[in-house]
Amino acid sequence: MSLRVTFLGTSGAVPTTDRAPSAIFINREGDGLLFDCGEGTQRQMMRFGTGFDVSHLFVTHLHGDHILGIPGLVQSWSFNGRDEPLTIYTPQGSGHDIETLLTVGDYTPAFPVEIVEVSAGDLAHEADEYEVRAFQTHHQTNAVGYALIEDDRPGRFDRQKAEEELGIPPGPAYGRLHAGESVELDDGRVVDPAEVVGEPRPGRKVVYTGDTRPVDATVEIAEDADLLIHDGTFAADNTDRARKTAHSTGGEAGEIAARAGVQRLALTHISSRYGADSSPIKQDAESTFDGEVFVARDGQTLDLPFPDE
Amino acid sequence: MSLRVTFLGTSGAVPTTDRAPSAIFINREGDGLLFDCGEGTQRQMMRFGTGFDVSHLFVTHLHGDHILGIPGLVQSWSFNGRDEPLTIYTPQGSGHDIETLLTVGDYTPAFPVEIVEVSAGDLAHEADEYEVRAFQTHHQTNAVGYALIEDDRPGRFDRQKAEEELGIPPGPAYGRLHAGESVELDDGRVVDPAEVVGEPRPGRKVVYTGDTRPVDATVEIAEDADLLIHDGTFAADNTDRARKTAHSTGGEAGEIAARAGVQRLALTHISSRYGADSSPIKQDAESTFDGEVFVARDGQTLDLPFPDE
Repeated sequence: MSLRVTFLGTSGAVPTTDRAPSAIFINREGDGLLFDCGEGTQRQMMRFGTGFDVSHLFVTHLHGDHILGIPGLVQSWSFNGRDEPLTIYTPQGSGHDIETLLTVGDYTPAFPVEIVEVSAGDLAHEADEYEVRAFQTHHQTNAVGYALIEDDRPGRFDRQKAEEELGIPPGPAYGRLHAGESVELDDGRVVDPAEVVGEPRPGRKVVYTGDTRPVDATVEIAEDADLLIHDGTFAADNTDRARKTAHSTGGEAGEIAARAGVQRLALTHISSRYGADSSPIKQDAESTFDGEVFVARDGQTLDLPFPDE
Repeated sequence: MSLRVTFLGTSGAVPTTDRAPSAIFINREGDGLLFDCGEGTQRQMMRFGTGFDVSHLFVTHLHGDHILGIPGLVQSWSFNGRDEPLTIYTPQGSGHDIETLLTVGDYTPAFPVEIVEVSAGDLAHEADEYEVRAFQTHHQTNAVGYALIEDDRPGRFDRQKAEEELGIPPGPAYGRLHAGESVELDDGRVVDPAEVVGEPRPGRKVVYTGDTRPVDATVEIAEDADLLIHDGTFAADNTDRARKTAHSTGGEAGEIAARAGVQRLALTHISSRYGADSSPIKQDAESTFDGEVFVARDGQTLDLPFPDE
């Protein structure tokens, strides 16, 4: 089950030559999910080879640097003959603005676009083996973050015990036991899955805050996450400015990551002040978080394996 | 008097990795004029070093690939503390859409933005030594092209005649004569400017069609232009498609250029079909036009000297 994160845009409010406005592409076993869609996202998708298959788009808030790539992308999809529907999730009360953006200049998308308003705590999107949940963040406007949370996977199948100890012949019974079904053997014995299947193992979790101050809701939902992508607009030298503009410093993001016990912390929405050198943001985060930290850059990809594989 | 054209975006409706959507920056002796503003124009301006000083923005029509870069650019200007006003010219009836685009997500620009609707034939912008005039084009929607037309310059000053034949001593009198004033010399003689100044010389002319079928109005306004930037979406192999989508082939653009007797023809709005090789478009234009032809590429600049310098 592949899970690949591609950072398409990692700039703050104003892009730079190196960083486009916010957008993150997640490919989960062929499902294309886009989180925010700043200006130029469609060309970033081409440039960084994510492919164009996106079924669900999650908008954290209505600031231009997170949404202005939506109409162009929708128009290119239309031009290229897309007919699969797209669902856009956006914070409560902002659906009309997304609609306006999609239809400016009397434009009508050539495929169905459903706009779904979400509130913190809502299950936004429920797929076969994972869900995407909205959570409360704190920015200058109505904003949510999103967590992609995989379902628990079945525990490990103890093949040795099944074959040698319980004498179950290899075959379809193994699959049924692993899937949680009891199995009756030829000699009449009934084997319970618990005899050969270990405890369920947690799926993976990727949490994206969008623009935010450090908040407890992020700690809660990001508990043990494989990857936390957090606002890291500034370093410690701009703590006041981070507070005033409702963003976070690397150090503040690191504290959230530490409290949540996440595996990796990616910092994004990097202010153009750190265009020449973003290492102060990274160092700031490392002062509060012991795990793996990086300042995301445009085009960077990260493959997240299951932790026990 | 410098006049530099920078092609910021030369793609058709759908951008490619090499071509961004439509935008052309003209710097005339420090005046920054932007013609169309497709998605990503602000980063193209950074990338290609045009600077960020734009006082007037001319929109040919309301299709997304010509306007979707406007709100992001305005937001970046606001963020960077711009207070100089901006005037946006846009075809009759489309001002409200531009307004909508600027204010989506409850946004308010931090500086004055004036939106001026223009019709074919209107003098859109009148500056000290040039004007920008709208002209009729033919596309799928209400569309105009724009011509930047410099005022006539004074004729050549015949310094030799002034000094040797008429005995006018070098000094401020030369400047006044060149500017068209009569001058009384110390000995009482009155010199008429016509005695030492030749015929007025035409200024330069740059014409941009935006998306269009070949039309007579372009021939008229582009007469003797230094540069005609014409829709060249397709080559001859897609003549039907050009007709159906109200675009032009290179050959059709070349015919217009030939009839107008322009100096140079730049083809833009290049369909992604010609992403690998745009030479068929150029060859098509060369089959109908003998002058200098090129298929514009993103980042290309062209300095236009006065023809007699």
